[in-house]
Amino acid sequence: MSYSEIGYEVRDGIATVTLDRPEHMNAYTFVMRNEMLRVFDEIDADDAVRAVVVTGAGRAFCAGADLSGGGRTFDKEQSTDMFAGEDDVLEDGTPRDGGGTVALRIARCLKPVIGAFNGAAVGVGVTMTLPMDVRLASEKAKFGFVFARRGIVTEAASSWFLPRIVGISQAMEWAATGRVFDAQEALAGRLVSRVLAPDELLPAAYGLAREIADNTSAVSVAAIRRLMWSGLSAPSPWDSHVADSRLMAALGGGADAQEGVTSFLEKRPADFPMRVTGDLPAEVPDWPTR
Amino acid sequence: MSYSEIGYEVRDGIATVTLDRPEHMNAYTFVMRNEMLRVFDEIDADDAVRAVVVTGAGRAFCAGADLSGGGRTFDKEQSTDMFAGEDDVLEDGTPRDGGGTVALRIARCLKPVIGAFNGAAVGVGVTMTLPMDVRLASEKAKFGFVFARRGIVTEAASSWFLPRIVGISQAMEWAATGRVFDAQEALAGRLVSRVLAPDELLPAAYGLAREIADNTSAVSVAAIRRLMWSGLSAPSPWDSHVADSRLMAALGGGADAQEGVTSFLEKRPADFPMRVTGDLPAEVPDWPTR
Amino acid sequence: MSYSEIGYEVRDGIATVTLDRPEHMNAYTFVMRNEMLRVFDEIDADDAVRAVVVTGAGRAFCAGADLSGGGRTFDKEQSTDMFAGEDDVLEDGTPRDGGGTVALRIARCLKPVIGAFNGAAVGVGVTMTLPMDVRLASEKAKFGFVFARRGIVTEAASSWFLPRIVGISQAMEWAATGRVFDAQEALAGRLVSRVLAPDELLPAAYGLAREIADNTSAVSVAAIRRLMWSGLSAPSPWDSHVADSRLMAALGGGADAQEGVTSFLEKRPADFPMRVTGDLPAEVPDWPTR
Repeated sequence: MSYSEIGYEVRDGIATVTLDRPEHMNAYTFVMRNEMLRVFDEIDADDAVRAVVVTGAGRAFCAGADLSGGGRTFDKEQSTDMFAGEDDVLEDGTPRDGGGTVALRIARCLKPVIGAFNGAAVGVGVTMTLPMDVRLASEKAKFGFVFARRGIVTEAASSWFLPRIVGISQAMEWAATGRVFDAQEALAGRLVSRVLAPDELLPAAYGLAREIADNTSAVSVAAIRRLMWSGLSAPSPWDSHVADSRLMAALGGGADAQEGVTSFLEKRPADFPMRVTGDLPAEVPDWPTR
Repeated sequence: MSYSEIGYEVRDGIATVTLDRPEHMNAYTFVMRNEMLRVFDEIDADDAVRAVVVTGAGRAFCAGADLSGGGRTFDKEQSTDMFAGEDDVLEDGTPRDGGGTVALRIARCLKPVIGAFNGAAVGVGVTMTLPMDVRLASEKAKFGFVFARRGIVTEAASSWFLPRIVGISQAMEWAATGRVFDAQEALAGRLVSRVLAPDELLPAAYGLAREIADNTSAVSVAAIRRLMWSGLSAPSPWDSHVADSRLMAALGGGADAQEGVTSFLEKRPADFPMRVTGDLPAEVPDWPTR
Repeated sequence: MSYSEIGYEVRDGIATVTLDRPEHMNAYTFVMRNEMLRVFDEIDADDAVRAVVVTGAGRAFCAGADLSGGGRTFDKEQSTDMFAGEDDVLEDGTPRDGGGTVALRIARCLKPVIGAFNGAAVGVGVTMTLPMDVRLASEKAKFGFVFARRGIVTEAASSWFLPRIVGISQAMEWAATGRVFDAQEALAGRLVSRVLAPDELLPAAYGLAREIADNTSAVSVAAIRRLMWSGLSAPSPWDSHVADSRLMAALGGGADAQEGVTSFLEKRPADFPMRVTGDLPAEVPDWPTR
């Protein structure tokens, strides 16, 4: 597949997705939305991908929605042609929020996703990254949940993700003020896990991806990612216990469990034979997609 | 409206609610409960209020329930006359916990609420503040979830709010010991966002309120506050995505969105025309109130 | 009752449960699972127990599942005889995950539970401790959510508990890498509340247990523990408000509330008369157990 507003590359088991409109601070468009949806389908379908790094080309990560349409940018009446597909509208015909479409797709990804913030991430440029597993920031990164300054609302299901990641007080402070803040404030508020010098950002992201790719069962990681993110919305621990029990029954006698234990006892690296495309148990939970 | 146990003032877009029984450490009474319910109705109905600061008169914030009734203070049999109204009892006639009545009202407020802890906040004096967006503390503030030392239970829906704000481990440590702790422990445990010198407390609270009032759309902030707090209890991100999509459709073509984007492109302050009282979309989520 | 793979002792109101297979790093077996279930029943039934400390004998806390069965350790087909009881299988006959059986039992305990990590806690050795209220670690403790390195999944309902304790980003980083990490990383990630010198670990755990036992109503603490942990899964604060209201009505006129307020007003230690075994109101919430 080819992409026009993002870059995509797979090397040594790690995929890199690059938001790639550097002349426009990688501002988010409907084309970029569609390419993000497609690339995560490609990632899930490719067993050569064990982990994903998402970053931006040039000096920004993503400046938010492309505002070149001016004051009517967020007026859905201006863009009814974009919402022709069944997956693009709610059951009652309301256009689906574009950032949320991508955020929910990332939440369901079968591979861990690491956000590497090289520069400004504002509006949908940060909200769409909330369902990524880990966020790392360059010292030059900036962030802003600026929606209240634009007369709209926090989107991309960020009212669900953000309070669960940074706590409701921090979420409300950032969303009610709409302030733009630096990487240190993001770290103190737990929006990002680490702040790094600019030239150490991608090496740190790839180091973490490497740690996953080199040591773990791909099927285990896919099942665990779905368990964790869906567990965050499971009504009670009993529901997670049922899901665990089904997956332990499905995987406990499998080839990866055998190799995992045997290699550990033999004190050698594991060589897991199972593949996400063919061997993922039906018991792995999924999220609603429409 | 007039109040006897609280103070209320609106200046430059910011309301100040002062718990005002300084000779009794602002201890919480049924009168105070009713006045807190009324003042938040007044706040929501007044477009001149963009943000709210809650603090205490004198040296305490709120010492908790007024115990002047002695050992039978918490005995509902002693106070059946207080629970005559439909809104004061559950469907089965059980008296509604008074702290919870106020906490749930604050959770639904359409304006951001900032708690400014000038001194001791104990029992209901701290639990009723958990649905406030941000808590700031003076170095002289103290806190205590003392219920287990009084033979009762954590109330004001604090078993819902507290673990989501400070984590279940910290919540259980404070609630199971019932200990009184200082502002630094509150900060380390993330109950408060900042600790300030006593004379810097209110300026910091007003500074934050100012940042909201000066830069944002009132309708956006009201919608975002409801999205966030109800999002904290939404079953899954899909539910938040549906709510986002409806609100983006309702507001994206509105006058505030037009002004928000246009003012940004023109690099000038925004002057948002929409008002909470008349322009809040029906799609803004609400919480159950009985 | 007697136990073979755990130790159990009650002294001055505090129970100590010791994982006790030091020659096998206290590795988890089906026998240990059953003894953990039994000991928490014993704890709940004994009014002499006000708080619980769980630790490990020798240099480990718990090295995880006993892998002496080799590569088929997690193959349920190898152990059908273990899942003969109604409580050991789901309704459809699927064997219940053993770690989860214990974790859910601990979550329902009527006494606060403090984990004291003297050494390595890996796999089920750490996941079963997530429903404990407070975790304290020796500087020598290590932790690992190593499931992805063994070809299985995070169990013991840890996909429910862990993101709620340490946040989804930290949870996914630990679970996707399967890395073993030290006490300082556990503290930074909020898996443990404090890190202590080895000989200060148990004194700190007992100090916290003492603070609970010496100052609080046993019935209050039992009710609060159930409110908090079930509140973490309550659909909305309204549900917690209903539970609070019922419990305040049930306990507010009780002997412990009378003693709690009276002793406070008289500035003397409280002597609470009520007992968990006989005086716990029916309104105290419970968790689903199968």
